[in-house]
Amino acid sequence: MSARLDFISAALGKRQLTLAIRNASLLNVFTGEISESTIGIYKDRIVYIGHSSGCPPAAEVIDAKGMVAIPGLIDSHLHVESSMMTPAKFAAATLPHGLTTAFADPHEIANVMGKEGIRAMIDNSRGLPQKLYYYAPTCIPESDAVTAGAELTPGDIEELLGWRGIWGLGEVMDYPAVLKGEDKMMKILRIGAEHGVVIDGHAPLLTGLELNAYVVAGAEADHENFTVEAMLEKLRLGLYVKLRGPYILDPKKFVKALRAIPHPYNLILCTDDVLPDNLTRWGHLDHVCRAFMQAGMDPVEAVRSVTLRPALHMRKFELGAITPGRAADIVLLDDLRKFNIKLVIANGVPVAKNGRMLVDIREREFDGSTRETMKLAPLGREAFTVRPPRDNGTVDVNTIDFSGYGKHEDNGEAFANMILTKMSRAKVRVRKGELSLGDVALVFVFERHGKNGNRAFGFARNLIRKGAMATTVAHDSHNLLVVGTNVDDMRAAANLVIRSNGGIAAVLNRKTLATVKLPIAGLISEHGLSRVSKEVQRLRGAFRTMGVLDHPYMPLPNLLALSVIPHARITDKGMYDVDNQRFVPPFP
Amino acid sequence: MSARLDFISAALGKRQLTLAIRNASLLNVFTGEISESTIGIYKDRIVYIGHSSGCPPAAEVIDAKGMVAIPGLIDSHLHVESSMMTPAKFAAATLPHGLTTAFADPHEIANVMGKEGIRAMIDNSRGLPQKLYYYAPTCIPESDAVTAGAELTPGDIEELLGWRGIWGLGEVMDYPAVLKGEDKMMKILRIGAEHGVVIDGHAPLLTGLELNAYVVAGAEADHENFTVEAMLEKLRLGLYVKLRGPYILDPKKFVKALRAIPHPYNLILCTDDVLPDNLTRWGHLDHVCRAFMQAGMDPVEAVRSVTLRPALHMRKFELGAITPGRAADIVLLDDLRKFNIKLVIANGVPVAKNGRMLVDIREREFDGSTRETMKLAPLGREAFTVRPPRDNGTVDVNTIDFSGYGKHEDNGEAFANMILTKMSRAKVRVRKGELSLGDVALVFVFERHGKNGNRAFGFARNLIRKGAMATTVAHDSHNLLVVGTNVDDMRAAANLVIRSNGGIAAVLNRKTLATVKLPIAGLISEHGLSRVSKEVQRLRGAFRTMGVLDHPYMPLPNLLALSVIPHARITDKGMYDVDNQRFVPPFP
Repeated sequence: MSARLDFISAALGKRQLTLAIRNASLLNVFTGEISESTIGIYKDRIVYIGHSSGCPPAAEVIDAKGMVAIPGLIDSHLHVESSMMTPAKFAAATLPHGLTTAFADPHEIANVMGKEGIRAMIDNSRGLPQKLYYYAPTCIPESDAVTAGAELTPGDIEELLGWRGIWGLGEVMDYPAVLKGEDKMMKILRIGAEHGVVIDGHAPLLTGLELNAYVVAGAEADHENFTVEAMLEKLRLGLYVKLRGPYILDPKKFVKALRAIPHPYNLILCTDDVLPDNLTRWGHLDHVCRAFMQAGMDPVEAVRSVTLRPALHMRKFELGAITPGRAADIVLLDDLRKFNIKLVIANGVPVAKNGRMLVDIREREFDGSTRETMKLAPLGREAFTVRPPRDNGTVDVNTIDFSGYGKHEDNGEAFANMILTKMSRAKVRVRKGELSLGDVALVFVFERHGKNGNRAFGFARNLIRKGAMATTVAHDSHNLLVVGTNVDDMRAAANLVIRSNGGIAAVLNRKTLATVKLPIAGLISEHGLSRVSKEVQRLRGAFRTMGVLDHPYMPLPNLLALSVIPHARITDKGMYDVDNQRFVPPFP
Repeated sequence: MSARLDFISAALGKRQLTLAIRNASLLNVFTGEISESTIGIYKDRIVYIGHSSGCPPAAEVIDAKGMVAIPGLIDSHLHVESSMMTPAKFAAATLPHGLTTAFADPHEIANVMGKEGIRAMIDNSRGLPQKLYYYAPTCIPESDAVTAGAELTPGDIEELLGWRGIWGLGEVMDYPAVLKGEDKMMKILRIGAEHGVVIDGHAPLLTGLELNAYVVAGAEADHENFTVEAMLEKLRLGLYVKLRGPYILDPKKFVKALRAIPHPYNLILCTDDVLPDNLTRWGHLDHVCRAFMQAGMDPVEAVRSVTLRPALHMRKFELGAITPGRAADIVLLDDLRKFNIKLVIANGVPVAKNGRMLVDIREREFDGSTRETMKLAPLGREAFTVRPPRDNGTVDVNTIDFSGYGKHEDNGEAFANMILTKMSRAKVRVRKGELSLGDVALVFVFERHGKNGNRAFGFARNLIRKGAMATTVAHDSHNLLVVGTNVDDMRAAANLVIRSNGGIAAVLNRKTLATVKLPIAGLISEHGLSRVSKEVQRLRGAFRTMGVLDHPYMPLPNLLALSVIPHARITDKGMYDVDNQRFVPPFP
């Protein structure tokens, strides 16, 4: 109450402002105008916009002549875990890119550690100069076809919605459960509706009646858009459509299609997953915004799509605009279209300049339990034993086939094809009971959460040429996934990951080509951007050497165990036909 | 929960729809497109939009070929009491104009009866086909300069926000209290912020630092715009700017000014006060929308300003668009620009056609206490006694001067000038202790709520030429206001109003020219639109005969006692200099 009074006094000029940004070219997201203005700030709030001459005196003044001021960027759909960094290090890495607010679905860590993992993320996010809000993940585990480290029940989700730091229901990935009206999902959606919170969606390939039904169920947004037709259908149905960056779609195609619409009101730009090397090379939401502008999107609309609209969508009415009473989150650019971020102000404080942090971020440690999520002991050779149905000759095997990938110039199509793996049949030679793999790779999934010790194997095609990789970044249940062409390398890679309490390893001819240690929940490194980024670059180099399919968005094995993405997957329970929701034996 | 499942089933075509509107030209407020579509409805929700061929079968089908379908209209700022009808009769009168949702500030009845009055409005609104939500009024009484029938404390407001049917904080009229940071007002704003509800504003004439400060305090919208400059300043500050209809401003000027802005995101159309005769003659929010289109506003933007944008502003995300999952509130027009409303569907049910209701509205009675708010007994002649400071000659008097009014072609300017009354000095003749009024009128305000029996008098100029009028519609405290040129007519008019438990009366030469009986709280009639409208028309005729200043928006005396509108007013406590917040004696 006294605080409100202070802000009113400051706005009236009766109290010295803490900061004034003078003579900026202010992009007003409400009117679409760009005009020279001065922004007056008191503590963490904007209290004045108007002519320079009318602004009350301020303790600190920034002369922004020639600079464009836009609101701090807001990403309404991302996963901090994909950065492989702690929230605090994520903030330090993305604030220089103008990201002052993010809404993160912590479903990766929740699949490993449940509520405890979410609590750890929130604790680590407290007091950061970046506003990090978390969705309550709705699909833990993603389906019954996997063993995850935890389950979130409707009761858990209701509890989470009462936590400070939780804001909304995370992407409702299990759309088949929605369309079937499954009880648990109906309960979760009801809880969301009763609490009046945002419900984020996830509706790849849904169209027509099914898409109508999915929207009726309560989803308000979707980011799974690979084609312009899907985007248009969803915009028309009133969903907030969140377009991701150029690794995953071709902005030119989308901008061209958007031109056909007089003025779409519900278009948002977001990142979803940004791996550390991409963050270093291209940036974050600023990269997405820049790419859409370069593809011809009107700059005002592009800026609205990363500021005002995500704020409205997320019901954070104090964010997303440079107007009085709103959070003093401001980005200064030297050129709107080039979108070079020169200065970032968060909560009224300059926090990053020319790509570097100006302030230190003190981090709360992730505690012991988050570092003890690898429940597997090092694996012996026998763990990789496969008994073919005959000892000599050839056997038929079911394979998860990536042959659709790599034939497209368009990253978006390539990515869509990565998702659209198919189940296909192959022949493998057998000699004395041993498989002679050839161009078919062996895949193992080891349940690593200490739940049931499940081990499943299967085959994949066009995924890896030689050596082996192992990873605990195996969406969404994040069991230990091992892919390879020979058991020795597979075992070596697996044990590297097990010994580092989680991570990724690439091994060729028993030689370690690359490792990324991710001891926090098997997903998150202890290091900051520069080191993690280098590790991932080295890993990608190893993947190139080994012929592991790698997409700029993320390496393809990462999604091999995700049982809700069509069409063929493998989980700790076995090879899985997603469309028909049934398991398939490796040897038919 | 089971309901959600039913809607999902219906959307999937597994359950017969209740209604389909086929082949309409659907105006999609999200994309701005108008294209032939079929709308599928199950019960009170839209479950399908798309091609006619894909729509599941429905029990009832409306062929809307050649018709334009837009969402039901939403008025985010009005006062039901100004219609002089009960909420149920208001709904019956406005549904044919396409108004499927209204957010009403019940501050008129709250000034008379406090929470009990608000409860009575909500009770009467239950079960209506129109969605009527009420703001919690924030300024009861409007200021310390009046005696109202009730006070709403911060505690009351917190209680009200917990009531079903209450949605948001009503217009924060007492902007001086906001700017001074008065304790009660700070508490109320804090309660609004803590509950995360919409806070409606009221900021006439505020500009520069004061307007910045008012916005900082928490107001999110403002409807007090008389000039294009005020509108532009408020749009730029991020307020939702609510433009009222052509009685109060010139749409052409505003539309022209709006053209200078690339794309304003926060423009809304509303009505505020629509008197019954205006409702009959011109319509309601449809009239405002039509007027702005005729003035050149892009039809899609005009429709957004009465549908999607008020829904977003009011945080009613299930309203304002024709998309799956949203309320099935739909208006069919035969011509978008002419805005002729042919059919109105509310909650999935056709409720009005060609200007007439299709369904009966059953009304809950207003109970006894709402009909006993006139606490004055009939007045004797002595109640109107005025003792001038001398018995003969001339005396100086302070007058509330309306001389600014009536010299403008532009209704908006005329209305602004009505508001901008000034305090001026006049001379009045006295003979044997009796005033010989001439062109100066006498004004009395009788406290009528049984609080303190206050009686105040003063003078007005250019307000009435002959006879007298009395009214309990005397914003906002709704005491008994009597204006006249002679005591006999004043007494007769006052007693007519007292005997009917409230209302308005016009008397000339002791002859009753017109009465409007408003026995419910002294504000609301027992009758429906057609009768109240005729009564008000007769009253306006009487006002013309008597030379009472009358503006199409409302008769000028109605605002004479409103102590928060500049510059000169009179309350039950005396003549009042609003700018300096002090009382002024009638005889200086």
